[in-house]
Amino acid sequence: MKDFEQKLQQCRVAIDDIDQQLVQLLAKRREITARVGELKSQVGMPIFAPHREQQLLDKLKAQAQSVNLSSKLVEDLFRRIMRDSYNSQDEQGYQCINPDIKKIVVIGGKGQLGSVFVDLFSRSGYQVAILEKQDWPTSDTILADAGLVIVAVPITLTGQTIRKLSVLSNDCILADITSIKDKPLQAMLDVHQGPVVGLHPMFGPDVTGLIKQTIIVCDGRASDQYQWLLQQFQVWGALNYNVTANEHDSAMAMVQVMRHFSTVCYGYHLMQENVELEQLLAMSSPIYRLELAMVGRLFAQDPNLYADIIFSNPKNVVMMKRFMQRFASLLNLVENGAKIDFIAKFNEVADWFGDDAENFLQESKILLEKASEPN
Amino acid sequence: MKDFEQKLQQCRVAIDDIDQQLVQLLAKRREITARVGELKSQVGMPIFAPHREQQLLDKLKAQAQSVNLSSKLVEDLFRRIMRDSYNSQDEQGYQCINPDIKKIVVIGGKGQLGSVFVDLFSRSGYQVAILEKQDWPTSDTILADAGLVIVAVPITLTGQTIRKLSVLSNDCILADITSIKDKPLQAMLDVHQGPVVGLHPMFGPDVTGLIKQTIIVCDGRASDQYQWLLQQFQVWGALNYNVTANEHDSAMAMVQVMRHFSTVCYGYHLMQENVELEQLLAMSSPIYRLELAMVGRLFAQDPNLYADIIFSNPKNVVMMKRFMQRFASLLNLVENGAKIDFIAKFNEVADWFGDDAENFLQESKILLEKASEPN
Repeated sequence: MKDFEQKLQQCRVAIDDIDQQLVQLLAKRREITARVGELKSQVGMPIFAPHREQQLLDKLKAQAQSVNLSSKLVEDLFRRIMRDSYNSQDEQGYQCINPDIKKIVVIGGKGQLGSVFVDLFSRSGYQVAILEKQDWPTSDTILADAGLVIVAVPITLTGQTIRKLSVLSNDCILADITSIKDKPLQAMLDVHQGPVVGLHPMFGPDVTGLIKQTIIVCDGRASDQYQWLLQQFQVWGALNYNVTANEHDSAMAMVQVMRHFSTVCYGYHLMQENVELEQLLAMSSPIYRLELAMVGRLFAQDPNLYADIIFSNPKNVVMMKRFMQRFASLLNLVENGAKIDFIAKFNEVADWFGDDAENFLQESKILLEKASEPN
Repeated sequence: MKDFEQKLQQCRVAIDDIDQQLVQLLAKRREITARVGELKSQVGMPIFAPHREQQLLDKLKAQAQSVNLSSKLVEDLFRRIMRDSYNSQDEQGYQCINPDIKKIVVIGGKGQLGSVFVDLFSRSGYQVAILEKQDWPTSDTILADAGLVIVAVPITLTGQTIRKLSVLSNDCILADITSIKDKPLQAMLDVHQGPVVGLHPMFGPDVTGLIKQTIIVCDGRASDQYQWLLQQFQVWGALNYNVTANEHDSAMAMVQVMRHFSTVCYGYHLMQENVELEQLLAMSSPIYRLELAMVGRLFAQDPNLYADIIFSNPKNVVMMKRFMQRFASLLNLVENGAKIDFIAKFNEVADWFGDDAENFLQESKILLEKASEPN
């Protein structure tokens, strides 16, 4: 036993030594990637370089195999390291795609999501002004020489805010970041004669950066004049996705309204059923824990935000009623013990998902492995 | 510009050099942790050493700060490295807690979850026999000298399988791994006079190891005689959680039955609404993508498994009807534009979740950051 403890101790000393070397190398690497960020921002090269990244990963994975190391391990580690180095490069500030643009005005720029954009524009060297509720008496002065106006107010105020913007000059770009797109876009086109674009940033105010985040783009008018703005989003790391306002709204009914609403219902149900949350958590494996977390996380956030989205479009009520009917009809199968019919429906949906189901399974497996890392 | 490219190239060469050193160090580390695994399995020490792990992480995080490196980065990287080293240690086989036990028989040991246990017992040095459907004519021989019998058949066959087990000797432990516990436990107590324990492994057959996975334990009889089995689970890395069969079943109605059923309904709804899945995915940010993945992943799996769970207990139908009523009543608020009432309910649930909501938010944020790593 003493022999065992001695040997174990030797191994642990060796591991500690390796770990120290690892940390030192990581610090050195961080210094160099910060330098890369500086260089890139000087010439305006985007920070996110997918091709170089893939090359690097492929090489490292091959090297991993040659030294009998899991290539999955090496891939995971270096993805994490790269994410950190993107953050360090972000800190350098961003290239300004359109230095000639006049002032940018963010209406509601002190709000949660508005301030994200104010921050990003400022760190890219633009002149940014904020127009808040109390500033409307002097709004003419603030808006006078604007080259871009972004409406970033709560969804309930979007319409009335847009209607006040008839004063903009014809070369000013008018944009909004509301989570519905059809109505605001129409309102902007009605009130303003210049370039118009509807935007929906598919992220919350808690993002740490825009790398790989999606911004949905619904063209209104004169798209050539706001291309620089879309390029600026790309410099920040975001992906732009073009759809019509209608397509956007019906997709969002599903991914936002329906999901948020049923999550609220599920939380409400858990409460009403007097569930013992602590016991439930103790009995939950990573997958159940994650599902519970996806429900619980909603209730740490602003109810107005969710209510605004859920109440934004009466058409959604009809769609959610259809969900209820489907829920009732499948529950009816369970009540009648019609297992074969239930499985048939299940298989129908599985066919409809096709390969995506398997892809989702793999994707979530990887994620769950991460979630269940010792902590 | 040429100067820029030269400088960038220099940086990239330096990064590549560091990365190679990192991989070499990782390979060396892996060799040593494999050695630790060997040593530990010789003396029967558990692989998962939370205390040592925390010490190591604390030290590394402090070191990270001293070299101006994100301690979160270092923590994430080393958790991932440790997960890999647990896997390498697993490959060494496990300590056998009870080498004196007679044969272990797994009924349904070729099934999905059954085979996970057959594999783990075998790699721990136990003598394991499998009893499959076609083996029942010779079951008396197979069961004759068993020290532990585990029923791992589909939930629909659990009852009738248990009723065939009146032949076991009184010192044999009888256990099952069905996802309901009250009925099987009662059936086992009725048929067998010796030690009885109901188990519910809270993981699917696709786990890569048992580290941090939960096994729910419902005592039947003579718990002192199966303590070694629970210790064996711990050697494999699992956490045991004791509850009564009743508590288990009502918790599972919520985390399994209700969640699975509503996920099936949601998939069915997406199909019926003729949603364009590819477009939906393209428009989804990490959080929505994850929610969609949690739905889609279900449909890549065995429908019988889910149907068996959902159809297992008629009491669940009543509970799910209550969910439907709550869904309908909240939807009624939306239909009537009663936003203030809706927000009041939301806040009620938020109060009920208490600190857990914020914890879930933080937890899922970390996970989402991982999910949105460049890939």
